[in-house]
Amino acid sequence: MASGQLSRAEALTREGVRHACHVMLYCDTRSKLFHRTPIGHIVLMQMRFDGLLGFPGGLVDPGESLEAGLSREVMEETGVALAFSEEDHMASCFAPTTSGPPSTPPLITHFYVKKMEEDQIRAMEIAGPSRAVDHGLEVLGVVRVPLYFLSDGGGLPSFLSHGFAGNARSQLLDALRRYHLVAPDDLGRALTSAVQVTARS
Amino acid sequence: MASGQLSRAEALTREGVRHACHVMLYCDTRSKLFHRTPIGHIVLMQMRFDGLLGFPGGLVDPGESLEAGLSREVMEETGVALAFSEEDHMASCFAPTTSGPPSTPPLITHFYVKKMEEDQIRAMEIAGPSRAVDHGLEVLGVVRVPLYFLSDGGGLPSFLSHGFAGNARSQLLDALRRYHLVAPDDLGRALTSAVQVTARS
Repeated sequence: MASGQLSRAEALTREGVRHACHVMLYCDTRSKLFHRTPIGHIVLMQMRFDGLLGFPGGLVDPGESLEAGLSREVMEETGVALAFSEEDHMASCFAPTTSGPPSTPPLITHFYVKKMEEDQIRAMEIAGPSRAVDHGLEVLGVVRVPLYFLSDGGGLPSFLSHGFAGNARSQLLDALRRYHLVAPDDLGRALTSAVQVTARS
Repeated sequence: MASGQLSRAEALTREGVRHACHVMLYCDTRSKLFHRTPIGHIVLMQMRFDGLLGFPGGLVDPGESLEAGLSREVMEETGVALAFSEEDHMASCFAPTTSGPPSTPPLITHFYVKKMEEDQIRAMEIAGPSRAVDHGLEVLGVVRVPLYFLSDGGGLPSFLSHGFAGNARSQLLDALRRYHLVAPDDLGRALTSAVQVTARS
């Protein structure tokens, strides 16, 4: 198990910690970009208030279950009521130490993945700006992650060169690998290109 | 006049060139983040199909006026009919040479800025995923640009560390300066921090 990772059960036995839950919502799609490039899957992320890309979710309140906390945050941020279960859980890990005051308890981040239908994903995109209480405040917009590769380097490689909150970028990469949304070789290729984009800029 | 810049009238006298028009749509807002940080203005950008951030717009068709071309592209990308005039024009410049085939004619990019009301901006955010023909294809989502500064470096500095299409980043900075949406000193501060973020990543 990679350093910092722990099981959901282990995480819940830790005392004096805070918990945060985030979720990757996705679906399969048959649509094609420019009638020729298969899009494959729609994966949702969001532009956060702090100007970084991240997944819906947030801090779990004391006394609240992980899944209830996630559900509450998703409702606030997307305007859609979704129930989550332990089966949607993918990984837990200690968040990198932040520069907060020394008294701040350590944070464990839990990552969930939930597969939906394409019309549900589309309904969430519409609900955000029309109903979510956090829209325009904690959430600046919902975006789809391009999982394809364009001949000029556009697509997944350029998307991975953006700024991401906390461990959202590695959570995205782990989920794309785990759920076979991008072939392992392609993922490696995207990462190499993304590093080059960042180094050039 | 900065290198590569030219007037709208000059641009229209050039032969054998292509034209592309993009627009920054914005409004004032009194809303506050976390009930304390003034948001000031809502500026719209979008996540493009190529995984980069940019402004609504695109290539003008042969025989089409610049403003009609912009209007058509904005309709396709946002689902909203907006008319543009010469008064909305802010700047024109030759696009950086791309790696396209040598026969590709040079591209002149025109940038427009249009101030709207807050309810019109909100209506555009809702219209995108519900009505725009390009949603999920050429446009992966609409995002607001944070113009504020959070104590941990979040806000405009982290937003500026993302990947932008063509000259969209400098168009954004020029417009924020020109229309006094961010104080010049703050803009300089944001740029310095953004460079540091990029260098760290």
